[in-house]
Amino acid sequence: MSKVRVGVAGYGVIGQRLADGVARQEDMELVGIVDVAPTLAIRALAEKGMPYRLFCAAPENMPKFEEAGIPVSGTMEDILSQVDVMLDATSAGIGRKNKELYVKHGVKAIFQGGEKNDVAEVFFHGYANYEKGVGKDYLKLTSCNTTGLIRAVDCLDRAFGVERVVVTIIRRSADPGDTHRGVVDLALVEPVPNHQAVDLMHIMPHVKATGVLVHVPTTHGHIITVLATPKREITKEEALAEFRKHPRIRVVRIADGFNSNAAMFRYARDLGNPRGDMYEIAVFEETIGFSGKDILFAINIPQEAVVIPETMDGIRACMKMQTVREEALALTNKYLGLKPR
Amino acid sequence: MSKVRVGVAGYGVIGQRLADGVARQEDMELVGIVDVAPTLAIRALAEKGMPYRLFCAAPENMPKFEEAGIPVSGTMEDILSQVDVMLDATSAGIGRKNKELYVKHGVKAIFQGGEKNDVAEVFFHGYANYEKGVGKDYLKLTSCNTTGLIRAVDCLDRAFGVERVVVTIIRRSADPGDTHRGVVDLALVEPVPNHQAVDLMHIMPHVKATGVLVHVPTTHGHIITVLATPKREITKEEALAEFRKHPRIRVVRIADGFNSNAAMFRYARDLGNPRGDMYEIAVFEETIGFSGKDILFAINIPQEAVVIPETMDGIRACMKMQTVREEALALTNKYLGLKPR
Amino acid sequence: MSKVRVGVAGYGVIGQRLADGVARQEDMELVGIVDVAPTLAIRALAEKGMPYRLFCAAPENMPKFEEAGIPVSGTMEDILSQVDVMLDATSAGIGRKNKELYVKHGVKAIFQGGEKNDVAEVFFHGYANYEKGVGKDYLKLTSCNTTGLIRAVDCLDRAFGVERVVVTIIRRSADPGDTHRGVVDLALVEPVPNHQAVDLMHIMPHVKATGVLVHVPTTHGHIITVLATPKREITKEEALAEFRKHPRIRVVRIADGFNSNAAMFRYARDLGNPRGDMYEIAVFEETIGFSGKDILFAINIPQEAVVIPETMDGIRACMKMQTVREEALALTNKYLGLKPR
Amino acid sequence: MSKVRVGVAGYGVIGQRLADGVARQEDMELVGIVDVAPTLAIRALAEKGMPYRLFCAAPENMPKFEEAGIPVSGTMEDILSQVDVMLDATSAGIGRKNKELYVKHGVKAIFQGGEKNDVAEVFFHGYANYEKGVGKDYLKLTSCNTTGLIRAVDCLDRAFGVERVVVTIIRRSADPGDTHRGVVDLALVEPVPNHQAVDLMHIMPHVKATGVLVHVPTTHGHIITVLATPKREITKEEALAEFRKHPRIRVVRIADGFNSNAAMFRYARDLGNPRGDMYEIAVFEETIGFSGKDILFAINIPQEAVVIPETMDGIRACMKMQTVREEALALTNKYLGLKPR
Repeated sequence: MSKVRVGVAGYGVIGQRLADGVARQEDMELVGIVDVAPTLAIRALAEKGMPYRLFCAAPENMPKFEEAGIPVSGTMEDILSQVDVMLDATSAGIGRKNKELYVKHGVKAIFQGGEKNDVAEVFFHGYANYEKGVGKDYLKLTSCNTTGLIRAVDCLDRAFGVERVVVTIIRRSADPGDTHRGVVDLALVEPVPNHQAVDLMHIMPHVKATGVLVHVPTTHGHIITVLATPKREITKEEALAEFRKHPRIRVVRIADGFNSNAAMFRYARDLGNPRGDMYEIAVFEETIGFSGKDILFAINIPQEAVVIPETMDGIRACMKMQTVREEALALTNKYLGLKPR
Repeated sequence: MSKVRVGVAGYGVIGQRLADGVARQEDMELVGIVDVAPTLAIRALAEKGMPYRLFCAAPENMPKFEEAGIPVSGTMEDILSQVDVMLDATSAGIGRKNKELYVKHGVKAIFQGGEKNDVAEVFFHGYANYEKGVGKDYLKLTSCNTTGLIRAVDCLDRAFGVERVVVTIIRRSADPGDTHRGVVDLALVEPVPNHQAVDLMHIMPHVKATGVLVHVPTTHGHIITVLATPKREITKEEALAEFRKHPRIRVVRIADGFNSNAAMFRYARDLGNPRGDMYEIAVFEETIGFSGKDILFAINIPQEAVVIPETMDGIRACMKMQTVREEALALTNKYLGLKPR
Repeated sequence: MSKVRVGVAGYGVIGQRLADGVARQEDMELVGIVDVAPTLAIRALAEKGMPYRLFCAAPENMPKFEEAGIPVSGTMEDILSQVDVMLDATSAGIGRKNKELYVKHGVKAIFQGGEKNDVAEVFFHGYANYEKGVGKDYLKLTSCNTTGLIRAVDCLDRAFGVERVVVTIIRRSADPGDTHRGVVDLALVEPVPNHQAVDLMHIMPHVKATGVLVHVPTTHGHIITVLATPKREITKEEALAEFRKHPRIRVVRIADGFNSNAAMFRYARDLGNPRGDMYEIAVFEETIGFSGKDILFAINIPQEAVVIPETMDGIRACMKMQTVREEALALTNKYLGLKPR
Repeated sequence: MSKVRVGVAGYGVIGQRLADGVARQEDMELVGIVDVAPTLAIRALAEKGMPYRLFCAAPENMPKFEEAGIPVSGTMEDILSQVDVMLDATSAGIGRKNKELYVKHGVKAIFQGGEKNDVAEVFFHGYANYEKGVGKDYLKLTSCNTTGLIRAVDCLDRAFGVERVVVTIIRRSADPGDTHRGVVDLALVEPVPNHQAVDLMHIMPHVKATGVLVHVPTTHGHIITVLATPKREITKEEALAEFRKHPRIRVVRIADGFNSNAAMFRYARDLGNPRGDMYEIAVFEETIGFSGKDILFAINIPQEAVVIPETMDGIRACMKMQTVREEALALTNKYLGLKPR
């Protein structure tokens, strides 16, 4: 079988990692990436010797690429004639405009969390609703927080059933290096319910969810506290066993030094992961507690990379590479090196 | 009736505000404050013209006070011969040592949250267990987070009954100006249950409580999300009505700009409150939500000043100034300018 | 002599403090303040009982003020008919539009640092070029950093002559409570020369100045390191003596605990200054050093309040209340409680 | 020629990177690393499959390693019998104690910046005083800030001569993930002169240096502004040409997006550098300015990795692998992939 041909539009924080993720899928071919200007990410690509072909979506900026000595392989239209599916990780609002081109070229597309849901047919999460994406033309991925949160809740739900969820999201307010957003000495509160809870109910309609979101001055990972009501009483050991079996969840111990979002980032750097990225969310073992039947725990969401595996799942679904959920997830996990730990 | 004579040991973040609080109680006399070195707080006192008498608990440091031109009115023993009750806001561990002197001089004392509970006879919260403190010699106040949290929970509990509470505490990791602690770009997670939940159950034994505490890089107020299970179904309006009636709780609206711990601090500064302090906790109105019968809401705890009113209550209790809770609270509130808003 | 009648347009971080500053000048009358919406600052004014009259510059927002229970005394045109001079502290760009109204009503105006220089006849600093402002209709104040920097440089210049200045400005990236700007875990570098050096040369054309500006994640004060070349060799004692004589400069010692922008803020709070404000810049005594003939030192700029005294000077100049610089400065200082310490 | 056998004591932030640096030197053999507990760094090493052998310097902790499933290859004494030189990157104070063992085993050693200078015979910087280290038994490296600063100053000095230097060091106050230090919303000023200036004069005695150090709440790189007086007038182009020729200096442009310490870190991550590390300091091109003859510029110091190349130089010097400076530097640079860009 020939490889599925994939392009990535928008080579920012998410786009770079999507490109790397596709490059690791042995049954996919990364045709190239698209951007509009010689950003730091593009300059780094050039310094690495252009492992990916670059297409320019803003012809008026071609002189800037030339001046920077960055080779360009063509235009947006050029790459669209060579791919089966585009991963659109452009800024919010651009994806919707790009979609017209995708439709024109008969190219499927997967949009990231910034776009509104109605840009796509299905609001998608690899683990929670893979089947809904099979064969569809346009998917929209859950955002980073929602992706990680659903991973944990879906994990418990498939094992024990989950009836409701109440979350507090302690959100990093900027990505590392961001200069266009961020707060200083501030914990900023948003109205209830937070969109992640609403999104969770969209993907998992049998769960009642609500929560509060608070922005804080950190860059390396969201922390979410989750209170979940399982269908039956469960023990800490049962919950831990399920989390540990999950290839995209790491159970870590505060006592071992995994005490924060930054410790998780440091560990990923020390592992030698490219960019210090981690695909897995972490469950802090010592934060698992109970209030009556309800289980409480805290997770870390590495916001830069967490959506990559589920987006790979999305390619598998929309391209019908695998129609059975478990087979698709297993392949994504295998190629990304994800396994129970 | 002659005024109750009060001293304050430790003129730091809390001690300064305790002294100001006592000075505003018309039925108390602030005899003086005690410290060991010419700190910034003491220097500010001197620049203001020594509105409070200063006693020095470290005779070896007297030359430093002299060099700084700060008048000293005597020693620790001197002040102990002139007071009925000491408010001990010294660093953790010092209070226990000071207690020997208090016992020796037959002086009552109220210790702040840093000390271990067994330093005192009663673990005290003005609103939640005033009666327990009446006539006792040694009280220990709840810490800042616990004081504010109990205020909110006790408020609901007296109106509707509360069966259980699950909290996420987003804790400021340093006070403004602190150089001896603090985290950078980090959200640090602690094991479940957090001590505030345990302390809440100590004070309100009929409530089951647990929760997670996360340290973040802010200085102006803890944010706590509270999920509380009332004894019966309540509405948002009912909850709001109770919060609004409480003289030590402000209901604020995110839509009006009260969106964060820092906004509350800014508002208190703009009000002209000394030091930009606020005694009241805030409930963010738009964070009130429901998950089944459970009520969810977020509060702001102004950590520097929040314990002052309950400490004033403590003086009233241990000195038997009022034996009826409502009368004591009403007087503290009146003198501190606290009223429903 | 009747009092000079002053209005303040824009009741934000600077406008609030300008209003307070005017209210303290015994030879001025604060006619009122102007704003467009019931911000937190306006709500605080209302909670304080409206010590200042409020005029509304956005009639369409009147219902919002009504809903919030905030009394409004009239429109922008109303206040313009009652004042001699307006202090315009509106957002950048608004002042220029307001100027048309000021011209129409024959009202003088002083614009804050955010406006472009050409909005006014004179780029003004109370200490450095008072004479230039005398009798003029429109002044523009130097920005917070420049105001504080010039204070220190002018102080040395008048005593010893200063030939050149090289600065590193470590700029706070947000005011306390700001949610619309700020950086997280970032020190952001700007091209040389920074605008403060350029502005200094505008005000003090005999000094050569350049420097670098770096934005950092703090809210309480800019720190500037200054390397200045005096006309003759000077000693640390000589420099200290001049700084100490200056009513708007505080010489502080790191050894005493004045070690940071935040320590200065904490001290101002502990002094009981409204809002924890400080009009004075601080020179950290132990940072005074020499490199050959050049003198090095670090200063703290309390960005929220530092421009207030020089703006009061500006009123005195443009209204010809005093034509002699020293007399004007002395009155501003007296009414603001500024004196050598 | 057989390879020089190297061990690393202390597998923390610096030790990890030293080990990686040695492993890249084709004429050296990394015998192993030493630590006392199963830290996150050691756990990451284990998860990577133990590419380096681990020796345990705290026999009492062996059960902890066992429990964590981390294989240990021996004790401190074991590794000392197998190496020619130890790189000691233990916490301050431990290196001095370790030195007794090094002496006992006849092993040379290079200490990192935390130790006091008198622990070694020579205070060493690869570029600035290579010759002094040749054949010596004990070297102490300059600290991260000083290493980077000297690189830049030495670069100009060799080309044009440098007479004096005045610096402002904007110091990151914690490494990523640190929980034991850090400041929140604070710029903390230290007395003049900063130790880096003093250290620079130690290494480059013909240069007069002073400066101020300010701690800020960032984790990714120190920013230093340097004012240097060259022996003759130079142009921006001349300076740039020298910086660009230097294999351990990157000239970057703010206009291209390299605007901060965090942008440099992000770029290093995007380059795929292990841990997102960068050995090179950066000169921000647009910060180069002049004040008379003096040249001003700002540099970024990636504090986690900057000392690695100079430590490799140190091995070459003390082991007399190369007696000629240029040959040693060229080999280190070649193996670390450092070249003019």
